[in-house]
Amino acid sequence: MKKIYGIGAGPGDGEYITLKGYKLIRKADMVFIPSSGGKSFAGNIAKDYISDKQVVELDFAMDGNEKGKYAAIARLIDDKLKSGQTGVFLTLGDPMVYSTFCYFMEELVKLGIQVETVPGVTSFCAAANRAKVPVALKGESFYLCDGDIDEEILKAADSVCILKTYKNKASILNALEKHGFEYVYVKRCTCDEEKVLYERDEILKDTDYMSLIMGRRKTV
Amino acid sequence: MKKIYGIGAGPGDGEYITLKGYKLIRKADMVFIPSSGGKSFAGNIAKDYISDKQVVELDFAMDGNEKGKYAAIARLIDDKLKSGQTGVFLTLGDPMVYSTFCYFMEELVKLGIQVETVPGVTSFCAAANRAKVPVALKGESFYLCDGDIDEEILKAADSVCILKTYKNKASILNALEKHGFEYVYVKRCTCDEEKVLYERDEILKDTDYMSLIMGRRKTV
Repeated sequence: MKKIYGIGAGPGDGEYITLKGYKLIRKADMVFIPSSGGKSFAGNIAKDYISDKQVVELDFAMDGNEKGKYAAIARLIDDKLKSGQTGVFLTLGDPMVYSTFCYFMEELVKLGIQVETVPGVTSFCAAANRAKVPVALKGESFYLCDGDIDEEILKAADSVCILKTYKNKASILNALEKHGFEYVYVKRCTCDEEKVLYERDEILKDTDYMSLIMGRRKTV
Repeated sequence: MKKIYGIGAGPGDGEYITLKGYKLIRKADMVFIPSSGGKSFAGNIAKDYISDKQVVELDFAMDGNEKGKYAAIARLIDDKLKSGQTGVFLTLGDPMVYSTFCYFMEELVKLGIQVETVPGVTSFCAAANRAKVPVALKGESFYLCDGDIDEEILKAADSVCILKTYKNKASILNALEKHGFEYVYVKRCTCDEEKVLYERDEILKDTDYMSLIMGRRKTV
């Protein structure tokens, strides 16, 4: 039997990994990290914990359709890992929140590899704590999306977080203003480049991929 | 100056505290834990890390209105903590997700106490990982609430989590079924008493306070 733990590496600073995740990383026979163009954000988060480990970079930016790609990467892991060995696969934030690991783990399971996941701190919780903006207070509804806002949901929600805002930031801010939300923009939360912005103009100027917008309905 | 770190202690198992939270607990001059009737769930999560620390239990179940209660507890912390000392306050899950710490920290700030919060693993992320049910996949919307479902939001959402389901479980399940959601019930996630239930009858029979229901729209 081979086993892979999908580990939520949290928002960016290695200190936000859980004790459980940290211990599994340290004990693992092999560490798998997703990379793109030779860079791995997840690998960078855990860099202090994996420098003496056998690390395998997996190129998730390679050509090909998603499904075929995940199957190929799963086969690569199956080749590298010996029977009885345990590997960890590091993912940003939490493995169940907008993570490719959700798709990818199905391919591992198909190959007979046992899979378990370990939750992590999400980017929106990190940002909420940084900006001291509640994700939700008692009785409130919270709406989470990535990129496109559904105004029908927004109309009824008390609190919202939009991930991956770089594509259509202006229309997101317009929708928030129209429906009576105050907002804050947080980029690279917990990282050295972290920034918290409140002004529309400043937010629109920033183009960072690792950014999100949190909104809360204005209280009159 | 006095400082309090509000620390997200995660869903229940002490291993799900972050490295940052753990280190702050170990370094703190004093550990404050919310309790009710002499029991503290947050204190229990961190029991292995605080047994040699100065621990102060704060009775959040005492009589009185919420605001007056929080002010009184903040004054108690201010009395206990000496100038220059640092305390930690442990909260379940994440301090910004349905946590009384959001209200409570305002009272600390009023007394001139510096407050910083440290994100934690939420119960719904822990449950999603346990049941291998994605909170959200690419392009999906996620709706989080505590107790009462807003059907207008549910109609448009792809994924949902309802916390504190013990009051009106049947109506929650009815709404999920009506709008085409599959569901799973998770109680005491990561604790010894953890249970994952899928059957309506079994779910209705369980009365645990520390439980949640996750729903995902059925794919045809």
